[in-house]
Amino acid sequence: MKALLLVAHGSRRKESNEEIAHLAARLSEQAEGRFDIVDHAFLELAEPLIPDGIEQCLQKGAQSVHVLPYFLARGTHVVEDIPEQVAIKQNEYPDMDIRITPYLGTVAELPEVLLKLAE
Amino acid sequence: MKALLLVAHGSRRKESNEEIAHLAARLSEQAEGRFDIVDHAFLELAEPLIPDGIEQCLQKGAQSVHVLPYFLARGTHVVEDIPEQVAIKQNEYPDMDIRITPYLGTVAELPEVLLKLAE
Repeated sequence: MKALLLVAHGSRRKESNEEIAHLAARLSEQAEGRFDIVDHAFLELAEPLIPDGIEQCLQKGAQSVHVLPYFLARGTHVVEDIPEQVAIKQNEYPDMDIRITPYLGTVAELPEVLLKLAE
Repeated sequence: MKALLLVAHGSRRKESNEEIAHLAARLSEQAEGRFDIVDHAFLELAEPLIPDGIEQCLQKGAQSVHVLPYFLARGTHVVEDIPEQVAIKQNEYPDMDIRITPYLGTVAELPEVLLKLAE
């Protein structure tokens, strides 16, 4: 079983965190054949935190967890903080395939998506 | 002439702001026939700020400026801060078409883009 864990920053605003949960639900609907489990987690300020999010995926039976940083810029969160949190679980479960995917800001389709949105 | 102004939060990290300038340049290359001018601006912490970014577009000859919030969540920045900054120029130039487009987080293609990225 393969899991996708969408990781956002987390906010003090409940509505922002709910937006992420809602997006993860939409991903789950569209993931057929690609991911068996789609969950979300937060770097800080909201729950579940990243290690708990990974743990949830594993408890649901995932052998592979792809952690996707829902971030636009290659800042400290992407470069240091998320890898640090993911490493906790990589060390705990060395036999599982727990990996970080490229962050949202790297998506090649982004310029075209933005141009369409702007029109 | 029609302008697209990509608006990001702005960061203390120079590299993050350069990522935005780089993205705006890519948008400019792909904008042919849709926007004559593509610029970028920041809400805070970096320059140009939003009113100056709009002013630059108008000085380059734009009659229409589409301000695109490069933000993922519908937080205070999207709901209050950006509209406040844009209103400064809307009031100064009532005859120009200065408008805010939906923010990045609303893009319908986002789930599909994320699923592809995660694989």
